[in-house]
Amino acid sequence: MATLHIAVDAMGGDHGTDVTLPGARLALERNPDLTLTLVGPEESLGPWMDALPDLLADRTRVCPERQVVGMADRPSQALRMRSGSTMGRAVAMVHSGEAVAAVSAGNTGALMALSRYQLKTLPGIDRPAICSALPSVDGWTYVLDLGANVAVQAENLLQFGVMGSAVAKIAGGIDNPRIGLLNVGIEAIKGTDSVRQAAPMLEDSGLNYIGFVEGDDIFQGQVDVVVCDGFVGNVALKASEGLSRLLMGSLRHMAHSGLGGRMAATAAMPALRQMGRKFDPRHYNGASLVGLTGIVIKSHGSTDDIGFANAIDTAALEGQAGLPGRIGDLLGDVMSSVLN
Amino acid sequence: MATLHIAVDAMGGDHGTDVTLPGARLALERNPDLTLTLVGPEESLGPWMDALPDLLADRTRVCPERQVVGMADRPSQALRMRSGSTMGRAVAMVHSGEAVAAVSAGNTGALMALSRYQLKTLPGIDRPAICSALPSVDGWTYVLDLGANVAVQAENLLQFGVMGSAVAKIAGGIDNPRIGLLNVGIEAIKGTDSVRQAAPMLEDSGLNYIGFVEGDDIFQGQVDVVVCDGFVGNVALKASEGLSRLLMGSLRHMAHSGLGGRMAATAAMPALRQMGRKFDPRHYNGASLVGLTGIVIKSHGSTDDIGFANAIDTAALEGQAGLPGRIGDLLGDVMSSVLN
Repeated sequence: MATLHIAVDAMGGDHGTDVTLPGARLALERNPDLTLTLVGPEESLGPWMDALPDLLADRTRVCPERQVVGMADRPSQALRMRSGSTMGRAVAMVHSGEAVAAVSAGNTGALMALSRYQLKTLPGIDRPAICSALPSVDGWTYVLDLGANVAVQAENLLQFGVMGSAVAKIAGGIDNPRIGLLNVGIEAIKGTDSVRQAAPMLEDSGLNYIGFVEGDDIFQGQVDVVVCDGFVGNVALKASEGLSRLLMGSLRHMAHSGLGGRMAATAAMPALRQMGRKFDPRHYNGASLVGLTGIVIKSHGSTDDIGFANAIDTAALEGQAGLPGRIGDLLGDVMSSVLN
Repeated sequence: MATLHIAVDAMGGDHGTDVTLPGARLALERNPDLTLTLVGPEESLGPWMDALPDLLADRTRVCPERQVVGMADRPSQALRMRSGSTMGRAVAMVHSGEAVAAVSAGNTGALMALSRYQLKTLPGIDRPAICSALPSVDGWTYVLDLGANVAVQAENLLQFGVMGSAVAKIAGGIDNPRIGLLNVGIEAIKGTDSVRQAAPMLEDSGLNYIGFVEGDDIFQGQVDVVVCDGFVGNVALKASEGLSRLLMGSLRHMAHSGLGGRMAATAAMPALRQMGRKFDPRHYNGASLVGLTGIVIKSHGSTDDIGFANAIDTAALEGQAGLPGRIGDLLGDVMSSVLN
């Protein structure tokens, strides 16, 4: 068995095994170092395993579990099931060291609650956060928190800076990530108390802190990591997704409604497809639950097999690099910078 | 002189009179009921007035003022100038009743501070807000607050619902506007304290409250007014603008780089132009400073003449309908609903 072993909640997400199984197969095909444990009911996973080519089946095993955390279940309900759910068992395998990372497309609140309960936060990290990449002019911008914490203190924002910096280095391959603090203006007098207090802490942190940024800077390529509370981050993420869908939908509608004739529709398609590739949320699917002692990746609930495979790829990248240890090291550096 | 008299800060914005004067002229040409006072230095405005056709010049006058609030000035600096600035004098004309509304493309914080200082809030309104329309699938969504208040109480969110409802009726022509409360999820347990406490208040308000909405709902056409604090609203607005610019820029780049050949570029242009018309921020330029005893419209600082003319049009619409009185009436209805 290879060292890069990942636990996959086969039942999470809007489409369950219809997406997770083809996604898992795609990830296995693309990454020869990867081995997977799929957590779900044997009767759903068995036939699929039987149909896998031997080369892939050799790198895959099934962990039988029937109980599933519902997409609308509250975190407290998920916690009451403890590890007795497909999601909980995937996370438990990270805790026991059997797997280097867990991936689920299930209920975000439940996944965060189970991960936090089982894995605990890293020493020096008060609260975990959700971090994902959004497309920018010339690459990607890592934004956190995307919804784990609706209200935060300045210390949390500093810690998010550390966590985001580590993710941008590992998952984004960015050498010395530029970190911005999300605010409503560039004047130091603006913003909430926690944002204003976090600014000098980030300045003294030794991180590559570039100052306040605004909502549009997420997409401008001048910053690699954007730090904010989970309410603001979640709204910014969802607003961007909503606008992106609206714009792409309008474009497709126009291409098909024959505005400018069939020629326009045909001719515009390659451009549309190329646009789609860059802004398709599947291609940056896989949000990291960071600040924990283990690696947990949340896939979009509505993604398809390609998106789910990308979430597994992100888990593999973070697993290979040992994200939690890297965050711990960086936090140590920051703490000695702040104290000196 | 017609009754619809509007005071225009001719010096605000990134481009000053290069944009405000052609914009003012466009608004005069489009709306025969409109008369304007342009506030600015005589030597800048005089030659332009001399060049105006008599029919338009008859509906325009100049209020001489040299002092200008800088785009980077703090609100406190603007307040120290009192009405002795182009922006302050425009607002003062609303206070004195000479003008039914003021329009400025200048510094938002300064405009809000001057407006609040001179005009005061309406009885029953604790804090004014900034409200603007964003494009949705089938129309517009009015979002507030967009940056006047970085932190709010539940009562403020209720009042924003009242103010947004009145703006959507008047500026958007929407009969019984559907109001949503921006949150990170549809479960009642989520969100900040103020958001959770505002929900039952909005339910009892008699307004057409539809419940919690998320960031992507701004663009889906299922809600007409989205209520949130100014930090979240500002980030959502700017993130949307940034992403829109990025997407349209990528499309234009692809169309011009000849991907798919010259034919594609030529053929895609009509679709691009139609897209541009809908998502071009100029076409929904003009944010309302609401909750005050008078009408003040903030134009985007970087807009062009078309955008500035649209901001004047919004001022005219709100002036014609008597927005502050309508907000006062609606607030009275809501207060009796809440008390019954």
